[in-house]
Amino acid sequence: MRVVEVFGPTVQGEGPYAGRVCHFLRFGGCDYRCSWCDTPYAVEPAQVRAAENLTPGEIINRLDDLAPAPMLVISGGNPALQRLDALIPELRESYAVLAVETQGSVWRDWLAGVDSLVVSPKPPSSGEATVGNWHSFADFMEASEGVAGRVLKIVVFDGGDLRWALDVHECYRGVPLYLSAGTDVGGTGGYEATVAGVGARYARLCEAVTAEPRLHAAIVLPQLHVIAWGHAVGV
Amino acid sequence: MRVVEVFGPTVQGEGPYAGRVCHFLRFGGCDYRCSWCDTPYAVEPAQVRAAENLTPGEIINRLDDLAPAPMLVISGGNPALQRLDALIPELRESYAVLAVETQGSVWRDWLAGVDSLVVSPKPPSSGEATVGNWHSFADFMEASEGVAGRVLKIVVFDGGDLRWALDVHECYRGVPLYLSAGTDVGGTGGYEATVAGVGARYARLCEAVTAEPRLHAAIVLPQLHVIAWGHAVGV
Repeated sequence: MRVVEVFGPTVQGEGPYAGRVCHFLRFGGCDYRCSWCDTPYAVEPAQVRAAENLTPGEIINRLDDLAPAPMLVISGGNPALQRLDALIPELRESYAVLAVETQGSVWRDWLAGVDSLVVSPKPPSSGEATVGNWHSFADFMEASEGVAGRVLKIVVFDGGDLRWALDVHECYRGVPLYLSAGTDVGGTGGYEATVAGVGARYARLCEAVTAEPRLHAAIVLPQLHVIAWGHAVGV
Repeated sequence: MRVVEVFGPTVQGEGPYAGRVCHFLRFGGCDYRCSWCDTPYAVEPAQVRAAENLTPGEIINRLDDLAPAPMLVISGGNPALQRLDALIPELRESYAVLAVETQGSVWRDWLAGVDSLVVSPKPPSSGEATVGNWHSFADFMEASEGVAGRVLKIVVFDGGDLRWALDVHECYRGVPLYLSAGTDVGGTGGYEATVAGVGARYARLCEAVTAEPRLHAAIVLPQLHVIAWGHAVGV
């Protein structure tokens, strides 16, 4: 399996476990090409092919080499492209919490075995795919019904994204909704400008959500890891 | 009752409901004088005396005048100085979630009637009082045992604060612990510098917590409202 990053302990920056100490295991390979992807090194085929090809045992060893953490975040790319049925039970022995983030385009039965399933469909500004592939997303949501710890997380860059998030929310009212302020990955202004940009975008998102009562059950967060470390990789 | 602020809808910036849409009801009056207090207008006696003196009915009316929100945050100063026994049941009719934040120096039975009780004892850098008044804090923790939604939240400015937070955490292992990166209220550098300062302090706190396994169950957050709006009041 192509693994582009194994690191930690760090702090989870998004979703229901934001602020928790964790390790990250990031698989290469993705079925989407979001315009604002913040981990292109886990998506671009050439970079993914250049990543290490690890067996499940080697992955376990890499994680064991890190200072301990109570949670593992399995991310990508789209980690649901991987066959982790054998790996998940082994990981469970090392971590109190297993968390996965995936866009909800491909279902795997192993996803039912984690504690936190963050389903992150991609809004219009991504130029991608959930918008035009609603049926695969709907299939995923049906397959994952009843999975403990399932939430929706939608990145919002603009008003079109927020309207789309509202549509998703109205379809899946019972599923907790996290709205994540989009982060400009192309900024060149350094750490101060990056963080201030995140803050300003977060303020606009908060103001838009408070003005829309149908989104008042949402949880609105910035990307905490960008606030802490800017666009640094591997922290 | 002296009320220094009634505002919203806005987004809660701290604790277990960080990111949720809410109203704020801020009472004047405090038994502490923390050096880095971010709401001195709710603490300084002259400013508190200048605040509006409202009856419970007037407070309800002010809240009803706001655009709706699903949650009310009752804060201060120290809101536990108030007698809210009659007000809490009325507020319950308007809000799905009632949240209170208090330093844990004064117990009131009405605190048992809220959904989220954030107990925020003050660490050494405050120059205040929980450190030298452990018995009143211990009494509060005993009285609040079993209250649903009780958590601890400790602001951390430096290593001394973090060591103190660890002591508190070891005393109250079963209580979820939120660590909040301290925000420099004296900064004069404008919004960008303020937000970057929060981010840098948050990064240092994350790094210190990841390096201390005994704090790995903590939830580490910055003050999201400062990231959004700097030190603006009333948002």
